[in-house]
Amino acid sequence: MRTALVIGTGLIGTSAALALAGRGVTVHLRDHDPASARTAAALGAGTDAEPEGRVDLAIVAVPPAHVAATLADAMRAGAARGYLDVASVKGGPRRDLEATGLDLGAYIGSHPMSGKERSGPLAGAADLFEGRPWVLTPTRDTDTEVLNLALELVALCGAVPVVMDADAHDRAVALVSHTPQLVSSMVAARLEEAEESAVRLCGQGIRDVTRIAASDPRMWLEILAANPGPVADVLAGVAADLDETVRALRALQSPDEEERRGGAAGVEDVLRRGNAGRARVPGKHGAAPTAYETVAVLISDRPGELARIFADAGRAGVNIEDVRIEHATGQQAGLVQLMVDPKAAPALSHSLQSQGWSLRTP
Amino acid sequence: MRTALVIGTGLIGTSAALALAGRGVTVHLRDHDPASARTAAALGAGTDAEPEGRVDLAIVAVPPAHVAATLADAMRAGAARGYLDVASVKGGPRRDLEATGLDLGAYIGSHPMSGKERSGPLAGAADLFEGRPWVLTPTRDTDTEVLNLALELVALCGAVPVVMDADAHDRAVALVSHTPQLVSSMVAARLEEAEESAVRLCGQGIRDVTRIAASDPRMWLEILAANPGPVADVLAGVAADLDETVRALRALQSPDEEERRGGAAGVEDVLRRGNAGRARVPGKHGAAPTAYETVAVLISDRPGELARIFADAGRAGVNIEDVRIEHATGQQAGLVQLMVDPKAAPALSHSLQSQGWSLRTP
Repeated sequence: MRTALVIGTGLIGTSAALALAGRGVTVHLRDHDPASARTAAALGAGTDAEPEGRVDLAIVAVPPAHVAATLADAMRAGAARGYLDVASVKGGPRRDLEATGLDLGAYIGSHPMSGKERSGPLAGAADLFEGRPWVLTPTRDTDTEVLNLALELVALCGAVPVVMDADAHDRAVALVSHTPQLVSSMVAARLEEAEESAVRLCGQGIRDVTRIAASDPRMWLEILAANPGPVADVLAGVAADLDETVRALRALQSPDEEERRGGAAGVEDVLRRGNAGRARVPGKHGAAPTAYETVAVLISDRPGELARIFADAGRAGVNIEDVRIEHATGQQAGLVQLMVDPKAAPALSHSLQSQGWSLRTP
Repeated sequence: MRTALVIGTGLIGTSAALALAGRGVTVHLRDHDPASARTAAALGAGTDAEPEGRVDLAIVAVPPAHVAATLADAMRAGAARGYLDVASVKGGPRRDLEATGLDLGAYIGSHPMSGKERSGPLAGAADLFEGRPWVLTPTRDTDTEVLNLALELVALCGAVPVVMDADAHDRAVALVSHTPQLVSSMVAARLEEAEESAVRLCGQGIRDVTRIAASDPRMWLEILAANPGPVADVLAGVAADLDETVRALRALQSPDEEERRGGAAGVEDVLRRGNAGRARVPGKHGAAPTAYETVAVLISDRPGELARIFADAGRAGVNIEDVRIEHATGQQAGLVQLMVDPKAAPALSHSLQSQGWSLRTP
């Protein structure tokens, strides 16, 4: 790929342009707001001058509602050899495009799975996609040349290509992203009217479950509005489990022994299915989750304590796989949980203790 | 407090005994399995010999179903000046005790909010309760002397006392602990039958929401079976929100403009209430959550990288308030998010960059 046209210089468009420009691709930047394209150009993402001829790849990075029309315009103008969009939902835009009657061999839908907490060209970064999955949704009609252009874009951005059917993609993000967001919000919403003394009892469990409930409602409404059907389907499955669990809990209060046994079986079933589902969530580097062992260390709240503990762990020659800091109630001390290979845990514990750290039960 | 009798030498009983014995209290250990009491004694938690006279405080740390009978036996024997239990549910045991007709002035219910991932005396640790909330549920009939004995126990264990009504406690743990557990399991359960390609798209959001879905089903069934009513009530509230949200998502697909607007309002409402609830979750040291700023740094997977980054951050004189390691798919590199006081973030970013670290958009 030697030339590209990025249409829409928001966070995603500018970040892709920065990555391509950094690898020597000539990038042309276009936005309905010329000031935005100028800003992206000033950041080194390319030029806001129009290309003189047909570019290799046109990347359409406009809001979901405008994707199909923007793609159709570019295709009618013959702007590029290949056309790709980056919208977070893939079935709708494809169907809208099909309705135009255009030949879609040169089009491929895509969705880079990057954080989108910020927006605008100034938030753009060449490494936004590094190590992240980038979904491509070719059909049997997609030209091989266009699929290869898309794979080249993904590689130049440092992302990991994942090929999927458009509707399967929409169901997948409903499952792994959109539903968890809504459910997290619903658990957090229960706290809105809770008594202060109850809120004081919050531990690490609810803290994790509700972390993403702090997300921006406007941004999430846009995402959910573009994928309402698949999200409603997954939520309906959760709702069925929820109703069943409420029934099982009520049965646990029954005077009838057999009903209580049925209730216990129902509650245990949802917990066991949760175990099975959780075991499928990929861990570090997309690998299956490894059972790390936790070494828990008490630290004071002074600056430099974390630095000291990591330096001391490094001296033990142990690779820390994950870290969690637990915040205690009402005390000026914290608990750092260092997750390490089980084989390395005894050596780390011993080394930290001999260096004066106070360990405790994780 | 000079003497104590711990009845039930599992994780909680042994840990409390270790804390008391470590502070000079004479602790007697009793268990229906004498080998367990002997093990706890061998760990330094006290003596498995019976006390010669009445002790200051009897601590009943047996499974929820046996709490009331064990307390009643000890009270009838006049074993102590004060009696306390540590069961994770408080309303049921109190009502069972009231049914015995005993004078309950010498009794106080309690619940130390500590991790309970392990069990048995060997998992006991004197610091198990350090910095954790320890709920006390006195009534107007509780003797002041007994409340003070309980407060002394909590202080000797390094925990933070929180006084609540017994039923309010059960509703509170249903809200902040039992319901999040079940909902996390239900979201994870959706993944059990998911296609592999969908599971590959899991990001940090679903990873956080489903972390506790890996918990032990047998242990959680016991906890939930002791508190079914309050948990069912909170879950019913979540179920109502869920049904409302499914309806709102379906309305977003309507051809009718006004219905779509209503659907959007419904979805936005649950997201906003989630924001409000999440804002009440206490952060570090039980304080209101501070809005930290995130400095995100790319690291390689080599040992010592975390040590280096914390040492370099320490050199910048910045206190790291929280850490998160994000695991990228398919790449031998990770993203470390350092959460710091917003005022300190620019200095930290600058310092890390000048020390050669590669920062990226959080």
